[in-house]
Amino acid sequence: MIDLRSDTVTKPTEEMRKAAYEAEVGDDVYGEDPAINKLEETAAEILGKEAALFVTSGTQGNQIAILTHCRPGNEIILEAESHIFYYETGTASAFAGVQTRTIKGTRGAMDPAEVQYAIREEDQHYPESGLICLENTHNRAGGAAVPVENMKEIHKIAKGNNIPVHIDGARLFNAAAALNLPASELTQYCDTVQVCLSKGLGAPVGSILAGSREFIASARKWRKRLGGGLRQSGIIAAPGLVALTQMRERLAEDHENAQYLAEQLNQINGIHIINQVDTNIVVADVKDLNMNSSQFVEKIKSEGVLAGTFGSSSVRFVTHYDVSRNDIEKAIAAIQRAAN
Amino acid sequence: MIDLRSDTVTKPTEEMRKAAYEAEVGDDVYGEDPAINKLEETAAEILGKEAALFVTSGTQGNQIAILTHCRPGNEIILEAESHIFYYETGTASAFAGVQTRTIKGTRGAMDPAEVQYAIREEDQHYPESGLICLENTHNRAGGAAVPVENMKEIHKIAKGNNIPVHIDGARLFNAAAALNLPASELTQYCDTVQVCLSKGLGAPVGSILAGSREFIASARKWRKRLGGGLRQSGIIAAPGLVALTQMRERLAEDHENAQYLAEQLNQINGIHIINQVDTNIVVADVKDLNMNSSQFVEKIKSEGVLAGTFGSSSVRFVTHYDVSRNDIEKAIAAIQRAAN
Amino acid sequence: MIDLRSDTVTKPTEEMRKAAYEAEVGDDVYGEDPAINKLEETAAEILGKEAALFVTSGTQGNQIAILTHCRPGNEIILEAESHIFYYETGTASAFAGVQTRTIKGTRGAMDPAEVQYAIREEDQHYPESGLICLENTHNRAGGAAVPVENMKEIHKIAKGNNIPVHIDGARLFNAAAALNLPASELTQYCDTVQVCLSKGLGAPVGSILAGSREFIASARKWRKRLGGGLRQSGIIAAPGLVALTQMRERLAEDHENAQYLAEQLNQINGIHIINQVDTNIVVADVKDLNMNSSQFVEKIKSEGVLAGTFGSSSVRFVTHYDVSRNDIEKAIAAIQRAAN
Amino acid sequence: MIDLRSDTVTKPTEEMRKAAYEAEVGDDVYGEDPAINKLEETAAEILGKEAALFVTSGTQGNQIAILTHCRPGNEIILEAESHIFYYETGTASAFAGVQTRTIKGTRGAMDPAEVQYAIREEDQHYPESGLICLENTHNRAGGAAVPVENMKEIHKIAKGNNIPVHIDGARLFNAAAALNLPASELTQYCDTVQVCLSKGLGAPVGSILAGSREFIASARKWRKRLGGGLRQSGIIAAPGLVALTQMRERLAEDHENAQYLAEQLNQINGIHIINQVDTNIVVADVKDLNMNSSQFVEKIKSEGVLAGTFGSSSVRFVTHYDVSRNDIEKAIAAIQRAAN
Repeated sequence: MIDLRSDTVTKPTEEMRKAAYEAEVGDDVYGEDPAINKLEETAAEILGKEAALFVTSGTQGNQIAILTHCRPGNEIILEAESHIFYYETGTASAFAGVQTRTIKGTRGAMDPAEVQYAIREEDQHYPESGLICLENTHNRAGGAAVPVENMKEIHKIAKGNNIPVHIDGARLFNAAAALNLPASELTQYCDTVQVCLSKGLGAPVGSILAGSREFIASARKWRKRLGGGLRQSGIIAAPGLVALTQMRERLAEDHENAQYLAEQLNQINGIHIINQVDTNIVVADVKDLNMNSSQFVEKIKSEGVLAGTFGSSSVRFVTHYDVSRNDIEKAIAAIQRAAN
Repeated sequence: MIDLRSDTVTKPTEEMRKAAYEAEVGDDVYGEDPAINKLEETAAEILGKEAALFVTSGTQGNQIAILTHCRPGNEIILEAESHIFYYETGTASAFAGVQTRTIKGTRGAMDPAEVQYAIREEDQHYPESGLICLENTHNRAGGAAVPVENMKEIHKIAKGNNIPVHIDGARLFNAAAALNLPASELTQYCDTVQVCLSKGLGAPVGSILAGSREFIASARKWRKRLGGGLRQSGIIAAPGLVALTQMRERLAEDHENAQYLAEQLNQINGIHIINQVDTNIVVADVKDLNMNSSQFVEKIKSEGVLAGTFGSSSVRFVTHYDVSRNDIEKAIAAIQRAAN
Repeated sequence: MIDLRSDTVTKPTEEMRKAAYEAEVGDDVYGEDPAINKLEETAAEILGKEAALFVTSGTQGNQIAILTHCRPGNEIILEAESHIFYYETGTASAFAGVQTRTIKGTRGAMDPAEVQYAIREEDQHYPESGLICLENTHNRAGGAAVPVENMKEIHKIAKGNNIPVHIDGARLFNAAAALNLPASELTQYCDTVQVCLSKGLGAPVGSILAGSREFIASARKWRKRLGGGLRQSGIIAAPGLVALTQMRERLAEDHENAQYLAEQLNQINGIHIINQVDTNIVVADVKDLNMNSSQFVEKIKSEGVLAGTFGSSSVRFVTHYDVSRNDIEKAIAAIQRAAN
Repeated sequence: MIDLRSDTVTKPTEEMRKAAYEAEVGDDVYGEDPAINKLEETAAEILGKEAALFVTSGTQGNQIAILTHCRPGNEIILEAESHIFYYETGTASAFAGVQTRTIKGTRGAMDPAEVQYAIREEDQHYPESGLICLENTHNRAGGAAVPVENMKEIHKIAKGNNIPVHIDGARLFNAAAALNLPASELTQYCDTVQVCLSKGLGAPVGSILAGSREFIASARKWRKRLGGGLRQSGIIAAPGLVALTQMRERLAEDHENAQYLAEQLNQINGIHIINQVDTNIVVADVKDLNMNSSQFVEKIKSEGVLAGTFGSSSVRFVTHYDVSRNDIEKAIAAIQRAAN
């Protein structure tokens, strides 16, 4: 089976497993886990922030950001198909009590003028605009790398209105690779950022939330409330550190594979690639095969390829560390068979 | 001053004041207020529902509906400029913990296909679709009367997915008058409905939430949590009953006045009426007067007319019981002076 | 029927009805209702606070106080049988998201040492102590007037820990009357206070929340979220003002009636008065009549007296404006008959 | 350093590290992690429940239970010094919106009559009693093993009132060992139970929540909301399985060490053991040493022993896998020096 459902399926490398085996650990609730401390320091530095916090998932990192920045009755501004709005089970409203104000973006980028328009004046009928969330790369926009200029403009509007900015950077390092910039060039336009160690970087578990020292101190308490206060978590931090320090460089390879996959699939009759492939995500429309996306996914599975539905007629393929160029070739051949 | 800011400014009539003075009252927390009981029975009948509950405001009625229908982590589907989303201070998320999924409508009506698309499948990444909210007439769509056919289609989709439907009918009787139908023809396409006794009907305070007997029993407890459990509230229910039984017939008059106002204003150089005037709301764009909406509102105030801003270059006028055709004539003349 | 269930059953006086009839009103959401403004100013002055806000019930006033003072994850310290904990439907946790930390008091008064002990240090395992709530008079302690000295000590502890103090003063004027002090002598030991205009003062509907100007500005927005933003609410504010200015003086009369009722009932075989009667509440144990409280309440009802159960074997009688000394005499006779 | 602060400080054994290294993993969000699946099945069997769910901490397991059993405005009944109330940062109220109704227990056991009394009737003033929480062993009661008979009685009352029962069994296996019963004898008196794999069992990270199949399906979604949906979590499940299957038997050893430690410390002048040592927790009062607990903890630290404050004059020692009888001897000698 060639698994292109998501980059979340990557398995830990031998080096990560070894790091877990040898991890120097302690009780992190007491702040005494050396592997965690090392990971958090390294992540803060890479992301250009004062401090960082290990969290167990991207959702947990995003939700802690919202809980720490906002209070109930606030409104957050975010893209209409962003992960926080679309895939986080309504948690921003369920726990943080904030209303979601969505803006339909272009390839994941919200129009700064629309962001400006969405910010509320003070009035007893209005929720207070409490946070602006960006997502980069943007998953449902097909892994689009949102341009730095767009982030800069929105950040400027936010600052002019005293509103913090959070980046859901689950795949931020993919964006950095695609834009050929260090991650800190992107994170300069936010107050806080969440990045995943799993997904493309291949760690088994975990994400990082980074921001100011004061913010992270408050965030730590919200993490406890979410049940994310762990004990000897060095056992997952150690492979996380391998992921963070050694796997970023190779993301470009996944992007090349995605590019190649898209080109080849596009030549198959009845398959149309509908996203501009900036990073490791390829979205194909299969309507012209007279199948819906679920049927297509079933069919290629029987040929040895796994992918995910992404709408009623569209299918998502994600390239990652566990899929070589050779696997991509095999996947193309299998999909070709399925399409006939 | 001719006050066209809102139909909420209507003052109680002599008959309403007298009803308050003479109201037979009791302790409504014990269910013993005769005026409240009479009002609730009458309202339920007019709205074609089993039971009704007096609430202190439209916002309270809508929020009780959401709290009773939903639980935290649900998602509600509603129009992008609906009152619940736009003007209720983020309360659906703050208290009921539900995420707001907005759909941009046409003259207040959501496209049924988009409603269908917005309904979530069961998946651990997705909030459950817990409620569909309609608004009729739709305030920010310029008092548009949403067609019955649209409500019917959305209701059918909702029922096919086991999702309840709530109507924010703050101005439902205006819609009924405009569509020339009894209110119960509209409310057959919802599980619950909120209607205001203030606004066009002229009562000093209060709204009605109506639905099934079982729903209203639960709603009563949520009303208590919101602090809406009152004592001798007959003193406001009695004028509310006057409003409900005697003032609906005269709404057509407000609509004619609005129609006339729109026609006349449209002939003033630099003023453009931008809504189709179905009911008692007129929205004018004043960009071509080289004023923003705040400046225009100030200027006509100095000429004796009050209106409200409705965007940076648009202004809202609302006709109501306390404004006669003669007042409308005077207002037009005053606005004409201001526009020169 | 002589109704001793609660002082909430009082009906508006002729003067209150007249005030409602004649009220000069406006749209209070715009801040333009003269009767409301007058009531709020008068209440602030009487309570010795900068500002006041009309709310529709005691529960609404208390919950707004908690919502304004606290944020989710805070803990509030309050008496184990206080109204906020016992009778407000769990709302402090449901809406404000605060944990209730209860202390069993003596006649409604919490031991200051226990309050001190209950205050949390900063630690990621602990909620932050966000508010201390007092109740005076204390309903479930049988209308006990909590001594000023106790309030003063707790207030001092609170201030030493930067924690605000709120008084649930639904019957604060009864406490003031019993302690023979102006209300402002009591409210100097709190940041915010809620007092009811209904209950002993006899207004049909409404309560007051008072505090600093800044606090009341925030509270106004939470009131909107609770659906307490009203329109021509002068119609209830006007009778409220009558209640506030003319009915406080006469509360002593209710206290004398309660005192007399207690003495007389205590002489009936099988009835034992179990509270010290400071104000207008009398609690009787009826175990020795071989009835539970529900049976006893039914029995005296058939003799023309209404009272409320207050536990499995105890019954509460509340004196108020609508019950004269003559009614009390009749009630005693009726209860005497029921007890035989 | 001999670390007696908590059994949470235990480090993973060589076998656990090896299990992590070799773990067969998959993406658990897709339900494809074999190590997780094996752990959940095994845990369900040991705990006598249909299904189980891996969670990242005891707090997360308890909070998911509350979120799944209850809805906002409910009240939960729990012991006044239980972990959920005392140490979980107010989360039950912050996220689940439930009010905490506490009962002061005796050695961790609530009086069934008081539980019965605390259950609310249906009334619009009352929150609904939504859950009863037990804790066994009870941490703040000094690791007391709550007797089975007590659990049985409370469970019976709960069932008679249609209220579910949850056990916070962070140290349930210590209770089972102390009572010399299989864990499933204890869990028969609950609907759901949470047990920790860390603490005495020594796993680096994680807990188990067990209950009916239907309950666990709902719980899974709440876990996602809390950010506990992990990817290749087999890397922590594998050592967790070692802990669960191989470390329960040896808890008795910790209990013997605690017993011995208590006896010896009690003979030191000025130190008084104040708990009955049922399991692995020893609580000492140090008032008579003229030190407060913080000073005492500092002093023994300088002698090479770590313990935790447990009140202003009391100190907690916890025995565990990483502390041998020989370490205990050394700790006693060190504390003896500190006390002189």
